[in-house]
Amino acid sequence: MHQTFDAALEINLLHANQRGADHNRSHFDAWGITCFNLMSSPGAGKTALLEKTLEALNDRYKIAVIEGDMTTELDAERLRRYGVPVIAINTGRSCHLDSKMVAGGIHRLEQEYNPADFDLVLVENVGNLVCPAEFEVGEHAKVALLSVTEGEDKPLKYPIMFQEADCLLITKTDLAPYVDMDFDRLRDNIRQINPDVTIVPVSVKTGEGLDLWFQWIAHQLEK
Amino acid sequence: MHQTFDAALEINLLHANQRGADHNRSHFDAWGITCFNLMSSPGAGKTALLEKTLEALNDRYKIAVIEGDMTTELDAERLRRYGVPVIAINTGRSCHLDSKMVAGGIHRLEQEYNPADFDLVLVENVGNLVCPAEFEVGEHAKVALLSVTEGEDKPLKYPIMFQEADCLLITKTDLAPYVDMDFDRLRDNIRQINPDVTIVPVSVKTGEGLDLWFQWIAHQLEK
Repeated sequence: MHQTFDAALEINLLHANQRGADHNRSHFDAWGITCFNLMSSPGAGKTALLEKTLEALNDRYKIAVIEGDMTTELDAERLRRYGVPVIAINTGRSCHLDSKMVAGGIHRLEQEYNPADFDLVLVENVGNLVCPAEFEVGEHAKVALLSVTEGEDKPLKYPIMFQEADCLLITKTDLAPYVDMDFDRLRDNIRQINPDVTIVPVSVKTGEGLDLWFQWIAHQLEK
Repeated sequence: MHQTFDAALEINLLHANQRGADHNRSHFDAWGITCFNLMSSPGAGKTALLEKTLEALNDRYKIAVIEGDMTTELDAERLRRYGVPVIAINTGRSCHLDSKMVAGGIHRLEQEYNPADFDLVLVENVGNLVCPAEFEVGEHAKVALLSVTEGEDKPLKYPIMFQEADCLLITKTDLAPYVDMDFDRLRDNIRQINPDVTIVPVSVKTGEGLDLWFQWIAHQLEK
């Protein structure tokens, strides 16, 4: 969030965004779609995780992706290889997706497909461990990723993301032997900020934890 | 930057910030201080780099640190061990330092020390590869860090940071053998966005490149 020298304006901005998010969610609900909002620092592995997820679950569920990036369609192109609709949103100078941008993505899904056919919409947010956590887009659950290379202090230093997360994936566990990550301390720090979040250590290289991630998804869709 | 649904407001916000930054810089100039603004994603190694920098240069230059974090003084405490003044600024919900916050830091430096005694002020920004690049704080040079674990596509996806950087440190080169970083492609992507930026690959673990970083600092202070 930016300080705009005007607290009332900030509150209005967040309220307007929340109304848009509620509206988006009512569409998803009407169509029987579950929506996740994936968020992390740049380079924590959101797109790589989505690649593995599409590869594994594409036959089981009807999936669409809403792909947020400031510029380029690099990530969208990576995901289109898996044969699912990938709606690319370029945020320009904005450091996060907001509900209005995602409404635009939903509108494109409606124009090109029958949204009621879909089970799951995966929103990949702009890489940023701060602001995306404050701007709901209509998701049913927030998924945060933290790479083992980022350090165990991050939940304390960026608490909003960790407070808001329903599922926290600790990514790149294959790199753990080469960095000084103290897993116990990381878990303690996470639990201090959010006692209830589901924590899943994963590696897209070794496959560690991916089954647990897929089980978490299945459980959300059965709700 | 956030979209506030009001372009004029965004421009006013950046203009007000720029005036503050110019004011801060005029103070630094009057005192003979050179100021760098260090920016990166969370966990790219800003604090670890500052530790090595203070260790190596503390005898040569009189250094102060302005340490920006949303919450906690964890990083400030790490740096205070090196016996330099570390002014901690908690930004709260703000995802970046702005010139007003740094002005507050400068004011505290003035109250507790004689600023004219200092050669170098190192500002460590909030971990965020987007917004800090848009909010100048009065620095003479912008230093961006990108870890080898973040991927070679980042300059294209987060262009503002890479456009603005005067010096780009590619950090954690010790992890390069364990990730699929293509250095040539990374350099091409950086050059596409910013042909003139100084690129220094470094590792605080092996010490690779640190001498080049210290030389870059020395060169800036001789200007």
